[in-house]
Amino acid sequence: MAVYTDISEEELGAFLRDYPVGRLLSYKGIAEGTENSNYLLHTSEGAFILTLYERRVEAADLPFFLGLMEHLAKKGVSCPLPVRRQDGETIGTLAGRPAALITFLEGMWVRKPTPQHCREVGRALAELHAAAADFPMTRANALSPAQWLRLWELCKARADEVEPGLAREVEADLAAVDRWPQHLPVGVIHADLFPDNVFFLGGRVSGLIDFYFACNDLLAYDIATCLNAWCFEKDISYNVTKGAALLAGYQSVRPLKPGEVAALPLLARGSALRFMLTRLYDWLTIPDGALVNKRDPMEYVRRLRFHRRITGPGEYGVDLA
Amino acid sequence: MAVYTDISEEELGAFLRDYPVGRLLSYKGIAEGTENSNYLLHTSEGAFILTLYERRVEAADLPFFLGLMEHLAKKGVSCPLPVRRQDGETIGTLAGRPAALITFLEGMWVRKPTPQHCREVGRALAELHAAAADFPMTRANALSPAQWLRLWELCKARADEVEPGLAREVEADLAAVDRWPQHLPVGVIHADLFPDNVFFLGGRVSGLIDFYFACNDLLAYDIATCLNAWCFEKDISYNVTKGAALLAGYQSVRPLKPGEVAALPLLARGSALRFMLTRLYDWLTIPDGALVNKRDPMEYVRRLRFHRRITGPGEYGVDLA
Repeated sequence: MAVYTDISEEELGAFLRDYPVGRLLSYKGIAEGTENSNYLLHTSEGAFILTLYERRVEAADLPFFLGLMEHLAKKGVSCPLPVRRQDGETIGTLAGRPAALITFLEGMWVRKPTPQHCREVGRALAELHAAAADFPMTRANALSPAQWLRLWELCKARADEVEPGLAREVEADLAAVDRWPQHLPVGVIHADLFPDNVFFLGGRVSGLIDFYFACNDLLAYDIATCLNAWCFEKDISYNVTKGAALLAGYQSVRPLKPGEVAALPLLARGSALRFMLTRLYDWLTIPDGALVNKRDPMEYVRRLRFHRRITGPGEYGVDLA
Repeated sequence: MAVYTDISEEELGAFLRDYPVGRLLSYKGIAEGTENSNYLLHTSEGAFILTLYERRVEAADLPFFLGLMEHLAKKGVSCPLPVRRQDGETIGTLAGRPAALITFLEGMWVRKPTPQHCREVGRALAELHAAAADFPMTRANALSPAQWLRLWELCKARADEVEPGLAREVEADLAAVDRWPQHLPVGVIHADLFPDNVFFLGGRVSGLIDFYFACNDLLAYDIATCLNAWCFEKDISYNVTKGAALLAGYQSVRPLKPGEVAALPLLARGSALRFMLTRLYDWLTIPDGALVNKRDPMEYVRRLRFHRRITGPGEYGVDLA
């Protein structure tokens, strides 16, 4: 939620000279994305997003992220299209950082998703999975269960500062996800499809953005992340109507395998654990007042408590017929 | 440099229903302005800036600020035009705050002004003064010399925390500005025409923004503020070529009176003192890590040291012929 790097018109003009985007008219730092600096540009050819990649995004991963967006956009997924420079490259350098220019997508992210929004995002997620099926590059998930254990080693001594007893709770979750599913359908997943990464216009998805966690992993794990991100209310109660809508939207494009359905409770618990752990790590290590949004790990601890009590996938609203 | 208030599409849609701006396509919080929350909107009719007025801006002053912008825009000054609602009002309420919608101006602010930029901004300032001459409303300067003394009372006990000896220096400045000019031409001044409030396109001024310090005061005091804001280098050396260009640009529209020229050293010292004091107050009172840009008061202490040594207005580059 912050612009980290200021850029001058001269620097930006020199950078843009290689891109076929016409004359620069304005650029504004926007409060979007937590990891990078983003600018909204107006040029004589239209609107674009300029991203400067800051900490946490590995430059070596950029060809995967930008290649994926280009692949998806060309297959009709509503996601930004990276603009190619005259030399064919999509990644340049600006203010000493890797930088890319992508098309701007109109639309608004929804602060309070309805079941209809959940249905639409479920459908969009399945369409993304289908469109990515023949994307040739691969990227391992840098936040897979093995990494959760590493994060936990860095946090556990101080976890009870957040809430007494938290360390013991989390140990039980880590033990549970030790039985992580191994033989479910895999493919390219978005891995961070939270509401602020999905734009809507007139009730329809108009844009999926922020592919900087995308990787190859279990497709149903992506659904589990969406259930966590879209189907809990502010009081962290699970809204099964929203869950059912999201799952039905997804299955209208790609029906789930029985093994994926059966694994949903464990995948949802694992996904909640992953977001709890990264939030906990940030909570404990980022100084107060840094220009980074520190999100409360307790929101995900409370999701974990819900998932622990689940007795079967039907409780998420999945159609078992 | 921060968005303070998040708004939902529902709230924004309800707010916009009264404005003739077509269908909302997107809105992005932008990192612009230090006092308010600003959003860049795209609608089917074009681009607009939505401002939510936060702390420090008095709601009672908004009719003056917005009325002034409308007056100036209609006289051909490149400044935002407030959009009137169907009921004729320009000020509404959004997220519990006063809010206004203004036209978006293309252009970029210059991080490193050249003498040519200084000449253009001088000319634009004089045109603003001329166009505002028949604006019927008035607003007292809330940061005039009497208020400097009040701010100083709140800061002086801790001023030496910033630099030892600072309190004694500032007392001398306050004594000097006690002989503040009383009979120079007055009118509506911008009072905050820093580089980030002036947009350029193709070397010409394309927009003057942020009228939220505008008030009735000495016209030459506005010039003095521009000399401080535009004509010092990063090392706080005064660039007399830029000063001469700014003053010549101004005088190409409105030649200065001899009394204004003679008063320049004192006005420049007073203006530097005003910005030093508000920065010092923020520096000492705003907690580290608040979402507010705390600017270094020493940048203005060093300008004050320059102005104290001035022996005559010619040293600013004013044409005394």
